[in-house]
Amino acid sequence: MQTFFNPRSVAVVGASAKNLGNHVVLNLKTGFKGAIYPVNPNYPQIEGLTCYPSIDAIPGQLDLAIVIVPAQMIPTVLEACARKGTRRVIIESAGFSETGPEGRALQARCDQIARPAGIRLWGPNCMGVVDVRQQHFFTFMHPNIRREGLLPGRISLIVQSGMMSAIFLAELARRGIGVAKACSIGNRADVDECDLIEYLEQDPDTDVIALYLESILRGRRFTELAQGAKKPIVLLKGGQSQAGAKAAMSHTSSLAGNSRLLKSVLSQAGVAMADSIFQMMDMAHTLAMLPQLNPAGRVAIMTLSGGAGILACDALERGGLTIAPLAEQTRERLAEVFPAWMPPANPIDLFPAVAQRGRVVAFEKAFAAILADPDIDLIVIHYVAGIDAGVPDIQGMKSLADRNQKTVLFWLMGLAEGKRLVSETARNAGIAVFDDATRLAECVATAARFNARKAAAESEPPNAITPPSSAAAPLSVTSPLWDEFDSKQLLRDWRIPVVDERIAADAAQAWSFAQQVGLPVVLKGLAPGKAHKTEHGLVKLGLSDERQLAETFTALQRQMDGLGRILVQKQVAFEYELIAGFVRDDQFGACVMFGLGGIFAELEPDVVFALAPLDLAAALRLVRALRNRRLIEGFRSMTPLKQEVMAQLLVDLGRLGIAYPRIAQIDINPLVVRAGLPMAVDANVVLK
Amino acid sequence: MQTFFNPRSVAVVGASAKNLGNHVVLNLKTGFKGAIYPVNPNYPQIEGLTCYPSIDAIPGQLDLAIVIVPAQMIPTVLEACARKGTRRVIIESAGFSETGPEGRALQARCDQIARPAGIRLWGPNCMGVVDVRQQHFFTFMHPNIRREGLLPGRISLIVQSGMMSAIFLAELARRGIGVAKACSIGNRADVDECDLIEYLEQDPDTDVIALYLESILRGRRFTELAQGAKKPIVLLKGGQSQAGAKAAMSHTSSLAGNSRLLKSVLSQAGVAMADSIFQMMDMAHTLAMLPQLNPAGRVAIMTLSGGAGILACDALERGGLTIAPLAEQTRERLAEVFPAWMPPANPIDLFPAVAQRGRVVAFEKAFAAILADPDIDLIVIHYVAGIDAGVPDIQGMKSLADRNQKTVLFWLMGLAEGKRLVSETARNAGIAVFDDATRLAECVATAARFNARKAAAESEPPNAITPPSSAAAPLSVTSPLWDEFDSKQLLRDWRIPVVDERIAADAAQAWSFAQQVGLPVVLKGLAPGKAHKTEHGLVKLGLSDERQLAETFTALQRQMDGLGRILVQKQVAFEYELIAGFVRDDQFGACVMFGLGGIFAELEPDVVFALAPLDLAAALRLVRALRNRRLIEGFRSMTPLKQEVMAQLLVDLGRLGIAYPRIAQIDINPLVVRAGLPMAVDANVVLK
Repeated sequence: MQTFFNPRSVAVVGASAKNLGNHVVLNLKTGFKGAIYPVNPNYPQIEGLTCYPSIDAIPGQLDLAIVIVPAQMIPTVLEACARKGTRRVIIESAGFSETGPEGRALQARCDQIARPAGIRLWGPNCMGVVDVRQQHFFTFMHPNIRREGLLPGRISLIVQSGMMSAIFLAELARRGIGVAKACSIGNRADVDECDLIEYLEQDPDTDVIALYLESILRGRRFTELAQGAKKPIVLLKGGQSQAGAKAAMSHTSSLAGNSRLLKSVLSQAGVAMADSIFQMMDMAHTLAMLPQLNPAGRVAIMTLSGGAGILACDALERGGLTIAPLAEQTRERLAEVFPAWMPPANPIDLFPAVAQRGRVVAFEKAFAAILADPDIDLIVIHYVAGIDAGVPDIQGMKSLADRNQKTVLFWLMGLAEGKRLVSETARNAGIAVFDDATRLAECVATAARFNARKAAAESEPPNAITPPSSAAAPLSVTSPLWDEFDSKQLLRDWRIPVVDERIAADAAQAWSFAQQVGLPVVLKGLAPGKAHKTEHGLVKLGLSDERQLAETFTALQRQMDGLGRILVQKQVAFEYELIAGFVRDDQFGACVMFGLGGIFAELEPDVVFALAPLDLAAALRLVRALRNRRLIEGFRSMTPLKQEVMAQLLVDLGRLGIAYPRIAQIDINPLVVRAGLPMAVDANVVLK
Repeated sequence: MQTFFNPRSVAVVGASAKNLGNHVVLNLKTGFKGAIYPVNPNYPQIEGLTCYPSIDAIPGQLDLAIVIVPAQMIPTVLEACARKGTRRVIIESAGFSETGPEGRALQARCDQIARPAGIRLWGPNCMGVVDVRQQHFFTFMHPNIRREGLLPGRISLIVQSGMMSAIFLAELARRGIGVAKACSIGNRADVDECDLIEYLEQDPDTDVIALYLESILRGRRFTELAQGAKKPIVLLKGGQSQAGAKAAMSHTSSLAGNSRLLKSVLSQAGVAMADSIFQMMDMAHTLAMLPQLNPAGRVAIMTLSGGAGILACDALERGGLTIAPLAEQTRERLAEVFPAWMPPANPIDLFPAVAQRGRVVAFEKAFAAILADPDIDLIVIHYVAGIDAGVPDIQGMKSLADRNQKTVLFWLMGLAEGKRLVSETARNAGIAVFDDATRLAECVATAARFNARKAAAESEPPNAITPPSSAAAPLSVTSPLWDEFDSKQLLRDWRIPVVDERIAADAAQAWSFAQQVGLPVVLKGLAPGKAHKTEHGLVKLGLSDERQLAETFTALQRQMDGLGRILVQKQVAFEYELIAGFVRDDQFGACVMFGLGGIFAELEPDVVFALAPLDLAAALRLVRALRNRRLIEGFRSMTPLKQEVMAQLLVDLGRLGIAYPRIAQIDINPLVVRAGLPMAVDANVVLK
């Protein structure tokens, strides 16, 4: 990877006196210190540089070729690179897999030429690399972009779409947020987001990695990298909606994938998921600025506007942060500057104190009081520039906060000129500034979560996953078409608790089983091709006497036209329903799923996913990752779910799925809970 | 109200050569054309104007007094106003009800002086009025605010907090959004948000009313005004979080109220609820700009960035809008400029078309094709200023769109200078510009909803509510402490279907009832003070034989120590659980509640509220307002809920509650549904 970012010599194949081929040359000339070789048989010179008719004609060694010629000429260019010994090529031209079968064939041909020659391909259909710190612009992006005042910073970008990388650079510049490297990777014939995450994770200029992707090529690898990453990763995933997923297919021929699974697996792995371009930028910026934020994230708010204080509370609480009660000593110290009628509380509305004691005294006393409060991690200062009198001593506040291991942020509003001034001073002091409280809350919560995760990772032993024994238990079921009974037999073999049940050949067998397990029982007709038994009227509940059972048995047989078989099952009482499952995803491979059952499963799904196999600790984290985890923590005086038992079940389920590569999916629905213990009541194994 | 906005003469009581008393005079001098009378015994002149020692000393007639003297002097000022015949007073000073009991008493005294004298009070503790169009600044706001370039516009603001009104003006100016009037109303001793909504609804300069409030003083009146309003109302309600509600109490001594009820009732009434300052501004701005948007809100997206197109889809679909499929003729026309490999689809990614046919041809042909598409209401143009080549003919696009009854919006990004230019051109052409797709989607969805509501209101007859007969049925229950049985007796009297049940004096009575209604039955112990029967183990389900019933009966009696009574109830099978209720809210009065039951009711509440009494049409709207209305529309092959039956139940429940003023609350939980019909299984009437 290093050579893509720091080549000694670069050729521009398709250099030109105008248009994109000219942009690349101009961009190289204004920053890159190595040798630049324009290549184009039609020009003797371009922008004052000697132009070569071909790669073969270049005199010296060639580290990197940037290619911008029409797609069908590119195989020839790659052959020349192979001859020349050039091992890094960025193809910025479009016209490959995004255009359909012919383009896909062309892209495959490029790969066939590059691979044996040891050439790493970047692109095609991309805008290449921008390294703001080194001023390397290996891209056809319009040279105007530099006039935006790009700032060198600690965030590196990986962007699948070409235009989007220019948009990110322009918008980050406008917001005064610095960038280390921006990598536009396009169709990813070879170099992909995982390669770059690995590289940037080691890059001394990068503190945070932010990505815009329409698909993830190697979901499993991506997740593992994220799990092990020491640097925060922020992802804006395009194509999460139906319409968006369809558009992603035609834009970069990306399969957007199972959006819920992706979001859940990556969140579990510590990736911050963004919903919009600016949210992604602000999250990345905040993560870069708040590495020291205490994960507890207990907030104090200082303001001269009571209204803004209230809105800040609303936004922070909505974001999951705590507006901390003030310690007694803090309240006492604040009372010294507050008017007698006003009891000090958080948010700290300083307006009356300022009216009474003046701005400087009120503000300094209050700030000192909060700095000394042991239950506050973060001080959010709402400031109205140009309306609040005077500019606060921002640098002094930052030093004091650092000394007291507190984090300070600004929520800044007000008149334009004052805002610009405060913003700039804050930036120089290393204080993050937000203009929207909702965004502030989202970003701070993200930073607190990341820091909490990092702290936990440092104290926890690494995952110890015993790989599933390759000598898996022989399948107790051999039929190729599995029904509910077969499916649960397999679960039972893997220690997963299942309801008491058996196949009954006739009503007498069913009645004898019913007497043995206790009344009432359930009869289910297992008919081929009718997995949705309830919808087909094949589930008969609450059978508690012999005649009723016999009649129902006969009726079910008639309903199924003599096909299939009949299952008799103990009817279990339960407190609530969960679901659990295994899925072999195209991008992420084997995954385990856990969630709330019943109508929840369909109305407002609360399901989480993690890569399988998982160890007990990871399974426990999954169990606790439910949005509504209150349900399993002793809700409405119910026995709390035995989380270790549930976690072990998920561990086993993952191993089971992995042990049999023919299994595409397992659904346990419902997994009922009684007295804190889960039990599979219905299950379905789907084979490939 | 008119005189507050257009007085012929204004006195500034507390005028001064410096500070706030000086700001008011300066603000008046730079816009107000009438007579200005500074009042302060310590100055002969202020800012070149004759200063009067008292109100009595003012020579001419005095329409409006702006008062900024210390709180305790204000009763004397009001007495002078009464003598002078001044009928409008804006008290901008603080130190009243927000400071505790003494301040409250002072505020009450002001009211006692003003009311008999026919004086309307505005404030106290506020920043008064700004009328941008007329340049009336009746406020102590810093005169610098004018340098921000305040634009006259069609939005009027009502802001409870003082500083917030300055913040709104500054931030709206910075975003290039115009304002008609900004009203800071403070403690609302007299003039409140309802008075101003009534006034602004008639104000020819106002198209949209936007409010920031920490509480709503007259919730019921507010709701009725909103229901009848012809102009869109946007509300940012501070104090929705726990911490925020607490802070609102100490800031403007506002009871933030039941936040879920407020949000639901006002949404039903057509109020757009905002979550943050900028969202509120953008919603108001969009509502002012898109009065013609077709409520169907079917969107086409045009972009030169495939990635942005995908993100726009994600945001718009998340916002509840439809990315419309293109009509066949539209696709055919687009195919003329698209390359052969690219099938035209929505979002319309023009990048390859531009590469092939040039910007002008590609863009114009595509735009014309969409304009002719009958299934498109709204065209969102993603534009990257300074990176997309050239500036589009924005004025021309707007005219074409108007002619074709389509709405055009810009999602604008890019280089700073280009952005400024496109923004300004779009503003002049009357096109709304957004820089964030998520915000764009929220605002467009809000406008579509408002326009849909307006269209429906025009076609529907006005609500025809028969007031409940004052001769309510005599209460069948007389006990002051009602239990479940009493509660359901009352519901039954009001035609609400309830489960078959009776009080059983002994096991024999219970068994005889059980045989009559069918097995199994439920026994419930109704013990005083134990409303949560399940938690107390007082509910015994599934009793289906005589001995079991008798034993359970005895056990329940023992459990209750002989107190209370025992209810025997048919155990009904059902498909799902709902809840319904009546509540007498402090701010909104009698309200009806409807929602999902079961664990939903507690885990992810999906409940809606409306003012009672409601007519059948309003009740039907309430039934359909559930987030998860899929459940009642024939979910999982269940019979759809008979919505008219459910609506009638809610109508009756509202009348019931209103008929008995002693009823504080009624909870029906669960209200089970079987075969589409609701039935109350448990209910609780709470008396005041």
